[in-house]
Amino acid sequence: MNLVINAMEQIMKDLLEEYKDRLQMNCMCDRCKIDVLALVLNKVQPRYVSNIEKIAYVKASFIDKQEMTSLIVKLAECAKIVSDNPLCEVMARKKEVDNHTLSDLS
Amino acid sequence: MNLVINAMEQIMKDLLEEYKDRLQMNCMCDRCKIDVLALVLNKVQPRYVSNIEKIAYVKASFIDKQEMTSLIVKLAECAKIVSDNPLCEVMARKKEVDNHTLSDLS
Repeated sequence: MNLVINAMEQIMKDLLEEYKDRLQMNCMCDRCKIDVLALVLNKVQPRYVSNIEKIAYVKASFIDKQEMTSLIVKLAECAKIVSDNPLCEVMARKKEVDNHTLSDLS
Repeated sequence: MNLVINAMEQIMKDLLEEYKDRLQMNCMCDRCKIDVLALVLNKVQPRYVSNIEKIAYVKASFIDKQEMTSLIVKLAECAKIVSDNPLCEVMARKKEVDNHTLSDLS
C-alpha cells in the first residue's frame, strides 16, 4: 500500500527554511529544527493527501495571505518554545561549558 | 535533516488492518484504503514525534479503552464515507458494467 502524506509537512519545512534567519533561535541544528517542525505540525490542522502531486493544491490554498500569516505566527511560537528549551547536544554542551566557566569564576 | 513522523499514521494503518473485515466496505483496494487513511488522519489530532522509536510511546497512550474506541469510531465513519463514494478504478469499472447492464435491460 502506498503512503498518505500530510501536505503541511512540506509546507512547514519550506516556511522554516524561508524564515529561519528571522526566527531568532538560539540554535539552528538539525535536532532543533526537527523539534520545531514536530511541535508546529501538532498545532496546525493536518491536510493529508493520497498523492504527492496534490501537495501543490494544498499549498495553493494557502496563497490567502491571512491563512499564511497564521501559519508563520504558529511557526514563530514553536520556534520560541524550542529556542527557550533546546533539547539538542549542541546546547547541552554549551550549558556545560557555561557552568564550568561560572564555577571557575566563583 | 531527518524526518518528523506523525505517530497516528502507523496507529491508524494498524487499526485499519485489524478492523478491515468488520468495516463492511464495498471495496478494499489499495486506493480505497489510502483514501480512508487520508480522511481519518485529517480528523484526528496529529501526534508528531522526532524519532521513529517514540511511536511506541504514543501508541501506549491509547491503551485507555475510551480513547482507542473513539479512534475506531472515527475510522468506521471514514470507511463509510469512502465506501459510499469510492474513487477507485475497480468501482468505476463496476459502475460502468452496471450501467451497461441497465441499458441492455431497458
